[in-house]
This record gives sequence, C-alpha cells and structure tokens, in this order.
Amino acid sequence: MFKKVVVFGVGLIGGSFALALRRAGKAEHIVGVGRSSASLVRAKELGIIDAVATDPALAVDGADLVMLAAPVAQTEAILAAIAPHLPANAIVTDAGSTKGDVVAAARKSLGGKIAQFVPGHPIAGREMHGPEAALADLYVGKKVVITALPENRGEDVERVAATWQACGAVIHRLSPQEHDAVFASVSHLPHVLAFALVDDIAGKPHAATLFQYAASGFRDFTRIAGSSPEMWRDITLANRDALLTEVDAYLAQLTSMRQMIADSDGAALEKIYASAQHARLQWAAAIEVAERKES
Amino acid sequence: MFKKVVVFGVGLIGGSFALALRRAGKAEHIVGVGRSSASLVRAKELGIIDAVATDPALAVDGADLVMLAAPVAQTEAILAAIAPHLPANAIVTDAGSTKGDVVAAARKSLGGKIAQFVPGHPIAGREMHGPEAALADLYVGKKVVITALPENRGEDVERVAATWQACGAVIHRLSPQEHDAVFASVSHLPHVLAFALVDDIAGKPHAATLFQYAASGFRDFTRIAGSSPEMWRDITLANRDALLTEVDAYLAQLTSMRQMIADSDGAALEKIYASAQHARLQWAAAIEVAERKES
Repeated sequence: MFKKVVVFGVGLIGGSFALALRRAGKAEHIVGVGRSSASLVRAKELGIIDAVATDPALAVDGADLVMLAAPVAQTEAILAAIAPHLPANAIVTDAGSTKGDVVAAARKSLGGKIAQFVPGHPIAGREMHGPEAALADLYVGKKVVITALPENRGEDVERVAATWQACGAVIHRLSPQEHDAVFASVSHLPHVLAFALVDDIAGKPHAATLFQYAASGFRDFTRIAGSSPEMWRDITLANRDALLTEVDAYLAQLTSMRQMIADSDGAALEKIYASAQHARLQWAAAIEVAERKES
Repeated sequence: MFKKVVVFGVGLIGGSFALALRRAGKAEHIVGVGRSSASLVRAKELGIIDAVATDPALAVDGADLVMLAAPVAQTEAILAAIAPHLPANAIVTDAGSTKGDVVAAARKSLGGKIAQFVPGHPIAGREMHGPEAALADLYVGKKVVITALPENRGEDVERVAATWQACGAVIHRLSPQEHDAVFASVSHLPHVLAFALVDDIAGKPHAATLFQYAASGFRDFTRIAGSSPEMWRDITLANRDALLTEVDAYLAQLTSMRQMIADSDGAALEKIYASAQHARLQWAAAIEVAERKES
C-alpha cells in the first residue's frame, strides 16, 4: 500500500494506472499533476485522482510513489522540477514508450537520486485518449516491461513489479537498450511505415478516388496512422538510432523485392510471402494460446 | 434470371456469388467447375452449386452466364478451353483482383468473342477460404468495379451490373487501367509492405523475442501478411507495372523520412505524421457515414 501516489499525466495511461491501483487497494491518496487543468478537473470528477496539484515540487511532498505518464519529451523537465523535493523513500517510475532517452534524462535530472528511478513500459493502449478513456482493467493480461538500472535497489524494482501485477499486468524484464531495439522493430517501424503510406496516398492528385476504393486490408494496415503525431514525433526522435537501423533493414528488404517484381521473379516473391504468412499465422496462433491461458 | 450459370472456382468468392444469385432468384441451375474435386463435392453438399462439371467445354454448353472466380493466373487457360463452345448469348464475367492482365488474356483466348466478356472485381473478402467460407451476404453493401470493354454491348454490361446489384453490391465503373492503378496503390502496395515487414522480422536471429513483444498495432498492420502467397504472387506479377510505380513512390517517401529521422528533424516528421493522421481520420469518418447510409 502506498500512502501518497503522484501521477504526472492523467490521460489513458496514467488515469488507468490510478484506477487500477485504487481498485487493487494499493493507494491511499492519489494526486494528479498535468499540463491541462481541464483534464485534471475531469480526472477528479471521474474519481481517478483524489486531488489536483499544480506545483510539481509541492505535489511530491510526502509521496512514496511517483508515476510519470506525461509525453516522454517532458520527462527531463518533470524530473528536474521534483528532484530537490523527492523524499528519500519515494520510488519514481514511468510509462514511456522509449527507455534509453528516458534513462538519460533521469540520470541528468535526478543525479545522485537516480537509484530511486525504476523505468517501465506498459504495452497497452486504446484508440481513445484523455481521462475519459481511462479504464481500471486496461492492464489486465498486458505486458509491462521493466528496464531496471544497475543503481536500483532490488526491493524497489520488485515493488514496482508487484504494483503492476496488482493492476493485472504480466512483468517482463529487458535492459533499456534491448527494449528500444525490440520496440523499434515491432512498433516504431510499423508506425513510420503506416504514416508514410497514408501521407504518400494523401499527397497524390487523385487521392480522393484512391481513398474511395480502400477497403478492409487498408483499414487494418493504416489504423496506427491515426495515432498522435506529437507523440510519435517524440518516440521517433527518442529512439532514433535503433529506429534508423530498422528503417535501413526495411529499405534494403523492399529494394530487393522491388527488383524481384521488376524481374517478374514469382518464385522469389512467393518465397518471401510464404515466409511472412507462416510467421504471421504462427504468431497469431501463439497469441491466441497466451490469451486463452490468461482468461 | 439466368437459366444456367457456370462458376469456375467455388471458394469464398465464387461460392458466395452462387449463394447470393440463388437467394436473389437470379439463377435456375448453377454448375461448379474447379481444380479441386473435394471443393466441388463440398460446394454441392453445402447447396452452393447444383452440379459438378469436370470438362470446361461441356460445362458451358447451354450456359447464359459464366463467372470466373478461379486464381487470376488460370484465366487464359480457362477462357481458351471454353471459347470454342461458348454459346453466342452467354455473358462471361470475372472476379479477378487485377484487370489489365485479365483483359489481355481474354483478348488472346476469346478472339472474336471478346465482346461477350465483361470484366469485374468485387471488393470483398474474409480471412477464411474455400466453399465453407462462402456467404450469401458477402457482397451486401460492398463495391463491385466493372471495367467494361469498348467491344461490350451496353445491355450485357448492364446485365452484369444488375446481377451484382441483386447480390447486394454497389456498382462502380473504371477503365481496366484506372482500376489497376487504384488497387496497386490502396491494396497491392500495402500487401507487399506487410509481407516485407513480417519476413524482415522473421529473418532476424532474435525473431522469437521480437514477436513476443508485438502488440495490437503490429497485429492490425500485418493482418494482410496472413494472405495466400500464391494469390499475391499472381497479383504482384499481374499488376507489375502499376505496382512498380507505387513501390518507387513509397521508397522515395521512406528514404526522405529516413533522412528526417537521421537529421532529428522533428518538425518535418510531425508534418508528415499529422497529414497522415488527418487523412486517415477523414477516411475512417467517410467510411462510417457510407456504412450508416447502406444499413
């Protein structure tokens, strides 16, 4: 049980964390901090938080858990504002989609208090945003990746893990570098590719005709291109190096397939399509088994 | 009402056409022809067809409508087999995903009977295949693109259109060239991109770890990579020229975005992401309005 939990960012991710913590009986008092006072007021009305704070320094007074769920680009400024006021027994954690940049920002802002920061990344989302979208069961059965630092005390890491488990999540552990390489490949690159396709089509003179004939395959492929441009700009820049590696590998793959198409090399194309289909079907089957186990 | 309808290929597309025709009271007798005798027997058991034929030449005897719903690569051989036996009053149509190559094959195989061939493309599908997947209402509210030829008689084109309308479909008209350019952009390119991504990931040494962290964004983006390799090999080759144009435009777009990432040019990236998000949300909203109108 935490006596005072401070949540920076009370939207989908932070708001759902607060709701889940409360339902699990893990938080006595929850304080929300954020850029938008309208969101904070709404979060209080919805019972997501008990109180609103405007001054980050005052907010963390007496806190024993601080969750950063604001856009990743704000991490350094938030940590710098709270560092001098952070109680020695408080654990700070976050929900950012990238970890290398967050850890670098934390080292810079927290200095000697870096041991108190246990980085994390819940793999959960919805298309909706803001406090209204927050759900107490958003994290049930979802993965949370904890990327512990060498400086962290083992008991703090386990407390963060246990807190997420109380929210229903399944804990995974990676280094920050491993985390960023993995998500560059399976999340950040697909987002870039989907944004690229839709912008490419939208820029054509006959875009209206093209969109008219787009069907369910296009709908699924481009769903992630409906994501927040600001958030994905930040993720792209935050994970630049790992993402460049993935973009280069993909450009090489696509350039090679372009040659197969130009050469009408049906056998080579079918081999790639079959390898992809096999991997996709295997992955989907494995996910189904995992979901049956959890439910 | 057609007296004798012959359907080549009694899987999802051809089987659903037969079921829809029968339900609409537009077909007296439906004969199925195909490569797999097991599928034909199953289609007959399921009431999709009334009779099975093994010889294409005999099958079209007395037919007044012939639907080609076999893989596109078989079009030329099927038309060559039936051409000498095709009754003068029979209309031939097809359900192929590409039209330029189908029209070229039809001109070659049908020769002087080309006027009897009215090409079409129903924009409908499911993840399942074969006669078991066929549904009488697969085409309800779905688009069917008719790419009429200069040689077609107007009344034959209208009869094909009316037949699809009786199946619940909404008729659109494009030239074969327009059709192929449109679908290269909104369907064939996304399939190539999704196959490329999954094969790229599957080929990495740590593929198992990567797939473990793939979540809902990845699932939607790669759903079309679960499609039939044989079918998509054929479509890729059949629509090679239009597809190469699209692949080249996409490679240029992605190469330019790669440079923005390398330069940490957040403003340029955000502009592309925002343009894509805007177009994607507008498109999704337009689809919703259209679906509400139809239901």
